Amino acid sequence: MTNYLWLVIAAGALGVLYGLVQTAALMKASTGNDKMREIAAAIQEGASAYLKRQYTTIGMVGIVILIAAYFLIGEWAAIGFVIGAVLSGAAGYAGMLISVRANVRTAQAASESLSKGLDLAFRSGAITGLFVAGGALIGVAGYYAIMTEMMGLERTGREVIDGLVALGFGASLISIFARLGGGIFTKGADVGGDMVGKVEAGIPEDDPRNAATIADNVGDNVGDCAGMAADLFETYAVTTVATMVLAAIFFRDQPYVDVMMLLPLAICGVCIVTSIIGSFFVRLGKSNNIMGALYQGLIVTGVLSVAALWFVVDQMVGGPVTALGGQAGERIIEPMNLFWAGLVGLAVTAAIVVITEYYTGSNFRPVRSVANASVSGHGTNVIQGLAVSLESTALPALTIIVGIVTSYQLAGLFGIAIATTTMLGVAGMIVALDAFGPVTDNAGGIAEMAGLPSEVRQSTDALDAVGNTTKAVTKGYAIGSAGLGALVLFAAYTSDLDYFAANPELYPFFAGMGEINFGLTNPYVVVGLLFGGLLPFLFGGMSMMAVGRAAEAVVAEVRRQFRENPGIMTYETKPEYGRAVDILTRAAIKEMIVPSLLPVLSPIVLFVGILAISDKATAFAALGAMLMGVIVTGLFVAISMTSGGGAWDNAKKVIEEGFTDSNGVLHGKGSEAHKAAVTGDTVGDPYKDTSGPAVNPMIKITNIVALLLLAVLASGNIG
Amino acid sequence: MTNYLWLVIAAGALGVLYGLVQTAALMKASTGNDKMREIAAAIQEGASAYLKRQYTTIGMVGIVILIAAYFLIGEWAAIGFVIGAVLSGAAGYAGMLISVRANVRTAQAASESLSKGLDLAFRSGAITGLFVAGGALIGVAGYYAIMTEMMGLERTGREVIDGLVALGFGASLISIFARLGGGIFTKGADVGGDMVGKVEAGIPEDDPRNAATIADNVGDNVGDCAGMAADLFETYAVTTVATMVLAAIFFRDQPYVDVMMLLPLAICGVCIVTSIIGSFFVRLGKSNNIMGALYQGLIVTGVLSVAALWFVVDQMVGGPVTALGGQAGERIIEPMNLFWAGLVGLAVTAAIVVITEYYTGSNFRPVRSVANASVSGHGTNVIQGLAVSLESTALPALTIIVGIVTSYQLAGLFGIAIATTTMLGVAGMIVALDAFGPVTDNAGGIAEMAGLPSEVRQSTDALDAVGNTTKAVTKGYAIGSAGLGALVLFAAYTSDLDYFAANPELYPFFAGMGEINFGLTNPYVVVGLLFGGLLPFLFGGMSMMAVGRAAEAVVAEVRRQFRENPGIMTYETKPEYGRAVDILTRAAIKEMIVPSLLPVLSPIVLFVGILAISDKATAFAALGAMLMGVIVTGLFVAISMTSGGGAWDNAKKVIEEGFTDSNGVLHGKGSEAHKAAVTGDTVGDPYKDTSGPAVNPMIKITNIVALLLLAVLASGNIG
Repeated sequence: MTNYLWLVIAAGALGVLYGLVQTAALMKASTGNDKMREIAAAIQEGASAYLKRQYTTIGMVGIVILIAAYFLIGEWAAIGFVIGAVLSGAAGYAGMLISVRANVRTAQAASESLSKGLDLAFRSGAITGLFVAGGALIGVAGYYAIMTEMMGLERTGREVIDGLVALGFGASLISIFARLGGGIFTKGADVGGDMVGKVEAGIPEDDPRNAATIADNVGDNVGDCAGMAADLFETYAVTTVATMVLAAIFFRDQPYVDVMMLLPLAICGVCIVTSIIGSFFVRLGKSNNIMGALYQGLIVTGVLSVAALWFVVDQMVGGPVTALGGQAGERIIEPMNLFWAGLVGLAVTAAIVVITEYYTGSNFRPVRSVANASVSGHGTNVIQGLAVSLESTALPALTIIVGIVTSYQLAGLFGIAIATTTMLGVAGMIVALDAFGPVTDNAGGIAEMAGLPSEVRQSTDALDAVGNTTKAVTKGYAIGSAGLGALVLFAAYTSDLDYFAANPELYPFFAGMGEINFGLTNPYVVVGLLFGGLLPFLFGGMSMMAVGRAAEAVVAEVRRQFRENPGIMTYETKPEYGRAVDILTRAAIKEMIVPSLLPVLSPIVLFVGILAISDKATAFAALGAMLMGVIVTGLFVAISMTSGGGAWDNAKKVIEEGFTDSNGVLHGKGSEAHKAAVTGDTVGDPYKDTSGPAVNPMIKITNIVALLLLAVLASGNIG
Repeated sequence: MTNYLWLVIAAGALGVLYGLVQTAALMKASTGNDKMREIAAAIQEGASAYLKRQYTTIGMVGIVILIAAYFLIGEWAAIGFVIGAVLSGAAGYAGMLISVRANVRTAQAASESLSKGLDLAFRSGAITGLFVAGGALIGVAGYYAIMTEMMGLERTGREVIDGLVALGFGASLISIFARLGGGIFTKGADVGGDMVGKVEAGIPEDDPRNAATIADNVGDNVGDCAGMAADLFETYAVTTVATMVLAAIFFRDQPYVDVMMLLPLAICGVCIVTSIIGSFFVRLGKSNNIMGALYQGLIVTGVLSVAALWFVVDQMVGGPVTALGGQAGERIIEPMNLFWAGLVGLAVTAAIVVITEYYTGSNFRPVRSVANASVSGHGTNVIQGLAVSLESTALPALTIIVGIVTSYQLAGLFGIAIATTTMLGVAGMIVALDAFGPVTDNAGGIAEMAGLPSEVRQSTDALDAVGNTTKAVTKGYAIGSAGLGALVLFAAYTSDLDYFAANPELYPFFAGMGEINFGLTNPYVVVGLLFGGLLPFLFGGMSMMAVGRAAEAVVAEVRRQFRENPGIMTYETKPEYGRAVDILTRAAIKEMIVPSLLPVLSPIVLFVGILAISDKATAFAALGAMLMGVIVTGLFVAISMTSGGGAWDNAKKVIEEGFTDSNGVLHGKGSEAHKAAVTGDTVGDPYKDTSGPAVNPMIKITNIVALLLLAVLASGNIG
C-alpha cells in the first residue's frame, strides 16, 4: 500500500510540476506595449495588496482557531489545520499571481488571433487548476503519509482522522473568507464602477477615466480567480478527507482498510494525469467555436478518466469488500460496483456541465428569454432572470438525486463517497475551464484601457461570454458535489457519533446518551432542518448587502474624484486608481468577517441551545439535521444564484452583439433594452460572484465544525 | 360532547351572520358619483367574468378528481372533497363580491375623511375574514357532525378521517388554482399595465387612458382578495382537519378521544367570537396612525383569545390526558399545558406580525435601505431588495423554531397541533387586516380614474401602504402556520402509515412492509428532501414566467389600442377595457394549470419512481421526506418573496412621498430614484402576489395528496 501512497503524492507533484513548467512558458509570452504593462502592473499591485491584507486578517482569526484546536483537540489537529489553511491560501495566491500575469499577455495574444488568446488564457487556467488539484492532493496524501508512514500513527485512529478533518477545516476557513472577501471586493468594484461610470457619467465599461476600473480588474483576480481557487481547493480536500474518514469507519478492522482509505486518493491521482492530458486537447477549431474547444479537452479528460478509474479499481481492490456502515447494516460491495459508482460521479459532472451551459449559454432559450424580456424594460428583465434562476435549480437537483440513488444502489454510502470523489477528481480540468474567464475579462479591460483596436475587445468579449458559462459550470459543479457529498459528510458525523457512543470508557461525554433519533418524526430534527435551512438565506442576504455597501463606497469615491478633479473627464489628469482599490480593500475585509463566522458559530449555538433545554442525544440529532438543512436549501440558493447571474450577464452580451426580439426589432448597445439588460447584469453580479459561490464553502464549514465539535467533546478537554 | 359540537357550528354561523349584517350596512354606504359607479361596474363585471371562467376550469379538473376519489377511496371522501372545494370557492367568490362593492364606497368615504375610508375598507375586510373563518368552521364541524352524529359513523374510523382529509384536499385544490390564476391575472395586469403605461407612454398609474387599468383593478379583487380568501380558507380547514386526525390517532380508545377531536374546533369557535369583538376596536385615533388602529383591534382579539382559550381548555379537558403517539411513545399531558401551547400559537402570530411589519413597513430600516439604494439606480435597488428579501426569512424561521420547541416541550406533537390551530383560530381578524388592502388599492384606482381630488388619492395611498404590510403579514402568517403545522401533517402521515402497517389484515397493501426508516442516514430520505426542496423553486420559476408572459400579452394589447386608436391619448375615445380583461383571463387560466398540477402529481411520481427501484418501505420514507423537503425550502422561498415584495412596494411609496437620502438629497415622484423604485416594485409584484403566496397551498396540497395516496392504497382499490 505504501507504494500507492507515494505514487499518489507523485501524481500531485506532477500536477504542480505541470503548473510550474507552463508558468515558465507563459512568462515568455509578449506583454504588449508599455501602456498595457503599466495597467497590468497597477492591477498586480492592487491584487497583491488586497490579498496580503486579506490573509493578514484571516491569519488573526486562524491563530485563535489554531490555539483552540491545539488545546481542545490535540497537536495533529492543529498541524492539519495549519496545512489546510496554508495550502488553500497558497492555491488562491498562486491563482492570483498567474492570472495577473496572464491577463496582459492574453490581451496581446488576442490582438494577434482569437485562437492565440484562447490558448494563452486557457493555459493560465490550467496552471491554476493543476496547482489546486495537485496541491490539495499533496496536502491530504502528504499529511496522511507523515502521520502514518513517518510518525507511525494508527491509520484509522482518532489522531489521523482528527488531523485530516482539521486539514479540511483549515482549507474551508480560508476558502469562505477568500470567496466572500474576494466576492465583495470584485462585485463592489464592478457594481459601483458601473453605476457611476456607465449610468451616471455615461462612459463605457473599463473606461480609463473611471477611478474604479483598476479596482474592477483587481477584483476579477482576487475574487473570481483567487477566491475560486481556494474554494475548489477546499471542496477537493474536504471531499477526499470525508471519503477517507468514511473508509476508515466502514472498513475498520478489515484487512483492506488501508486500500479503501487510499482508493479516493488514487482516483484523484490518476485524474490529475488525465486532466493534464486533456488540457492539451483544448484547441480552437476552424469553426471558432470556443465552447467546442473547451468541450474537446473536457471530453478527452472524461474518457481517459473512465479508463483510469477502471484501472485503479481493478489494481487496488482485489475482491468483494464488506462495508460495516452503522445503521445501514453490513453490505458486500463488488469491486466493479465501485468503478460504476465512480462513473456516476463523472456522469453527474457531465450532466451539470450540459445543464449549466443550457441555462447560461448565449444560444439557448433561458438567456434569450431574458434578452427578450429586456425589450419591455428593467422590471421584466429582472423578473425573467429571477424566473430562470429559480427554474435552473430543478435539473441539477434531479441529477444529484439520480446520482445519489444510483451510486447508493451500486455500493451503499461508500459508493456515494466514491462518486463524489471521482467527480472532484477532474477538478483540475474544471478549474482550468473556469479560471480562464477572469483572465479574459481582465484582458478585455486592459485592451479597452490601453486603447487597443476594437477587434481585440471583440475577441476577449467572445472568450468572456464563454467564461460566464464556465464560471457558472464550476460553481454548479462545486455545489453539486456538496449535494452529492452531503450524505458523506453526514455519514461521517453519524459514524463518529456511533463510535464515540460505543466506547464510552474512552469518550465519557458520550456515556449513557441513549440512541440518537435522526428520524423526521423527531421535532428537533425538524428544528435542525429549519435552522440549517435559514443559514444560506441569511448568509445570502448579508453578503448581498455587503456588496451594496462596498459599491456605495466606490460610487462616493469615484464621484468625489470626478467632482474635485474635472481634468479626469477630459483625459488631462489620471484618476487615483489606488484610492478606489484601498477603499474596497477596507470595505471587503470589514464586510467578510460577520457572514463568514455565521456558519462557524451556528452549529455550536444550536448544539448548546438545544442541550440547554433537552438532552445530549436530542442536541446531536438537531445538529445533524442542521447539516442536512443547510444543504437542502443551500443547494438551491447557490445554483439559482450562480446560474441566474450567468444568464443575466450573457443576456446583456447577447444584446450588445445585436439582438432581434420576438417582434423582429433589432436591439444593440445603448438601446433601451440594453439598459435594462445592464440592470439585470448588475443584479446578477453579487448573485453569481459573491453570495452564490460562497454558499458552497459555507455548507462545508458547517459540516466540518460539527465534526470538530464531536472531536472536541470526545477529547474530554471540555464538556 | 354533542352540545359542544353544535356550539362550534353556531360560532361558525355567528361569523357568517356577522358578515351578512355588515354587508347590509356596507351596501347602504354612498357609491359616489356616476363616473365612479360606472368604473366600479366595469370592475365588477370583469371580476365576475374572470372568476366564472376560473371556476369552470377548476370545476373540470375537480370532476375528474371527484370521480377518482369516489372510486379509489369511497363516498365519504368524495362528498368531503365536494364540500371543501365548494366552500373554498364560495369563500373566494364572496370575498370578491364584497371587495368589488366596497372599493367604490371606500373611495367615496375616503373623500370625506381618512377615518371613514379606513372604517369602510376595514369593515369590508372583516366581512371577508369572518366569511372565511365561519365558513371553514361550519364546513369542517358540520361535515364531522353529519358523518358522526347523523350518519353514526365511528368518530375515529377511516371514513371520517378520509372524509375530513378529502375536505382539506378540496379546499387546497381550489386554493392553489385561485391563488395562482388570480395571481397571474393581477400581476400580469399590473406589470404589463405599468410597463406600457408608466414607462412607455409616460402616463400615471391607474390613468383611464391605459386599457389595462380596469384589468389591474379587477386583478386586485380576483387575486389579492378572492385568491387570498380561498388560500386562508384552505389553511384554516387543513390545519383543523390535521389536528382532528392527530387527536383521533393519539387518543384512539381513550374515553376522551371525542373531546380531544373537538378541542381544535372549539378553539376556532371561540376565536371567531373574539375576532368579531376585536373588529369593533379598529378605530383611527387622533394621531391618524392607521397601523396603530389595526393593531388595536388585533390586540383586543389576541387578549380576549387568551382568556377564551383558557376557558375552553378548562371547560373541556377535565384532567391529564395520555397521548399514545407512535414512535414518540406515550405522553401524559396536563390540561393547562394545552392552554400554554395554544398561547404559543398566538405568540407566534404576534411575532410574525411584528417582524413582517419591520421588514415591510415604511418607517423601518429595510424599506428605507431599499429606498436609499434606489438613488444609485435600478440595479442597486433590486440588489438591496433581494438582500432584504433573503434576510427577512431568518427571524420568522427562528420564531417557528422556538414555537415548535416550546409547544412540543409543553404537550408533545399534539401541543404543536394545538399551537397551529390556535394560530389559525384568529384567521378571521388576520384576513380582515389583509382584505382591506386590495379594497383601498381599488379605491385609489377609482379615485384616479374618476378624477377625484388628489387628497382622496393621498388617503387611499396611505391606506394602501399599510395594506402592503398587512398583505405581507397574512402571507407570512399563512406560511408560518404551514411551517409550524409541518410536523402535524407529517405526523398524520406517519401515524396513518403506522396504523395501516399494524393492521395488515385490513390493509393488505401494507403487509410485511418492514419498518420505515425516516432517519436522515437513509439516502432515500435525503432524496425525498431534495425532491421536495426543488418543488417551491421550480414552482416559483414557472409562476414568475407565467406572469411575464401574461404581462407581455397585456403590453401588446395596450400598444395595439394606442396605435390603432390615437384618440385614446387625447381622451377623445375610451380604450376597450374589456379586451384587456379578456386577454388576461385567457392567459391566467391557461398558465395556472401546469404549475398547479406540479404539487398534485409530484408525490405520486416520487412514490411510484422509488417503488420501481426499491421497496414499499423505502418509497414511503422518500415520500415522507419529500413532504418535509417542500416545507423546508418552501417556507424560506415564500417568506422571502412576500416580505421582499412588500418592501419593494413600500420603498416606492416612500419615495413618492418625498424621500431624503443619506446625503440629504430629496427624491420624489418622477425622479431617477423613483424610476429605479418602480423597477423594484415591478419585480416585487409577482414575487409577493403570485409566486410567494401560492407556495403555501402548494405545500399543503403536497402533504394532502400524500395522505390521500395512503387512503387509496389502504382502500385496496388499486395497488
